[in-house]
Amino acid sequence: MTTIAFVGLGAMGLPMAGNLAKAGFTVRGFDTRNAAGEALATLGGEASASAAAASRDAQVLILMVVDAAQARSVLFEAGALDALAPDGLVILMATCPPKLVAALARDVEATGRPFLDAPVSGGVVGARAGGLTIMAAAPKAVFDRAGPILQRLGTKVFHVGEEPGQGATLKAVNQLLCGVHIAVVAEAFSLARKAGLDGQTVLDILSGSAASSWMLKDRGPRMLQDEPPVTSAVDIFVKDLGIVLEAGREQRVALPLASTAMQLFLASSGRGEGGRDDSQVIRSYDLLNGNVPS
Amino acid sequence: MTTIAFVGLGAMGLPMAGNLAKAGFTVRGFDTRNAAGEALATLGGEASASAAAASRDAQVLILMVVDAAQARSVLFEAGALDALAPDGLVILMATCPPKLVAALARDVEATGRPFLDAPVSGGVVGARAGGLTIMAAAPKAVFDRAGPILQRLGTKVFHVGEEPGQGATLKAVNQLLCGVHIAVVAEAFSLARKAGLDGQTVLDILSGSAASSWMLKDRGPRMLQDEPPVTSAVDIFVKDLGIVLEAGREQRVALPLASTAMQLFLASSGRGEGGRDDSQVIRSYDLLNGNVPS
Repeated sequence: MTTIAFVGLGAMGLPMAGNLAKAGFTVRGFDTRNAAGEALATLGGEASASAAAASRDAQVLILMVVDAAQARSVLFEAGALDALAPDGLVILMATCPPKLVAALARDVEATGRPFLDAPVSGGVVGARAGGLTIMAAAPKAVFDRAGPILQRLGTKVFHVGEEPGQGATLKAVNQLLCGVHIAVVAEAFSLARKAGLDGQTVLDILSGSAASSWMLKDRGPRMLQDEPPVTSAVDIFVKDLGIVLEAGREQRVALPLASTAMQLFLASSGRGEGGRDDSQVIRSYDLLNGNVPS
Repeated sequence: MTTIAFVGLGAMGLPMAGNLAKAGFTVRGFDTRNAAGEALATLGGEASASAAAASRDAQVLILMVVDAAQARSVLFEAGALDALAPDGLVILMATCPPKLVAALARDVEATGRPFLDAPVSGGVVGARAGGLTIMAAAPKAVFDRAGPILQRLGTKVFHVGEEPGQGATLKAVNQLLCGVHIAVVAEAFSLARKAGLDGQTVLDILSGSAASSWMLKDRGPRMLQDEPPVTSAVDIFVKDLGIVLEAGREQRVALPLASTAMQLFLASSGRGEGGRDDSQVIRSYDLLNGNVPS
């Protein structure tokens, strides 16, 4: 049986690790929060005392941490990479800047171990259901080796390129659209509100027209609420659009719409609203345009 | 039987007028192009020699002309309004700036005739199928009077407000999203191309993720072609985003994303590409970012 070390048991990581345990893999999990390890134990995995302990002689190490800096720290400072089997596979599934992913891949490969760049889309709902979209980049043989694991985590598993960093770029392209789509729904509602149109009527019409988007249907209803539940926070898009713009800087690509959308999320975060549901970026527009929220 | 004068028999107007004739209304059509009138005759309507002749004692006048200036010209210079029955209903279905629609409504109502602001969404496909989305604004009694006609043209007929101009605003809100959605797909592809990702793979992934939109699925495939068929031209969005930004100026609403998207359509048009399919706004990004089109 394959032993998988799984580091990062947050809202995404915990259900992903649980799905692998349920599929019969031996899963040793670690998170800086002890409670997360205990939660994994109830899902059929084992809680480890450290990232290195989780990785000891494991064949696979999956990183679902917050960012590239944390991934580097786990691998090279916390000793997880040294503890891993000599040919152990490292799979990075967190959303990180492409350039930093490529650098991590080089440093891991220098120890003789393969590296798979495999960020995901689909959110907590997709993570729980094993229904994630996975955008994987590495030489084909590395991608194929990870296949049995990826198939348990996602229903849409793509091999997008041979070079680690290309998966991260595709995730950035995905987040570019997601972030701009949320902000532009807020912009459209702002115009509609100022003109005295009923928000629910506007949403009903737009949801059934060529103006529709996945984000309009998902975030639109929460934009019409003052205090909606937090499904994904404003600060997630501050981070993700930051990665998009960093990818643009690396590739020397002008991204005027993503750059504009970023300013609205940044302003929300700067007002202390970074922990609110990302639909509440509409407050930036309400304040800017002097709207009374509906 | 209700007699309807229908002025403006273009790609949208002709099938709309045909649907009304098929439903049993007496439809007298006029277009500056004689061939359009002849085409209407084959659909069960009658070709008139002028807008005034079409409107003579008609109970309803539908305007599906190019813009507000043409609507004003038909009504007040070509004599259509004077020819209309004393209580004849004017229905403006073209996409026009809200402020100009409100002014037209006032001037029509000053002659004792009701006015319905009723722009549509759904394109030529929706016009042919009688499946348009209609965003109508006027006092409820006026909206109700138009009901039997609107129900023949669209499947989603909304009464969005009591004041003419609010329908035009909702159409502007709709076009704001449509225009930004097209431009941001081009921006996303531009980043992906520069990073060496395969366009079709990117489209497949994004179409099934939270990054998806109606426009991504419709325009995305044509963005990957060099010379796609023209479904809707770049210059239509130069016009429509112009109306969006004019609505923003009227309402004093900042629209940073729409304003940015407009620049990309404007640049395309300025390079002499205004007649190309609007998906080809991606050429603005290709030139800007030095991409070789895929």
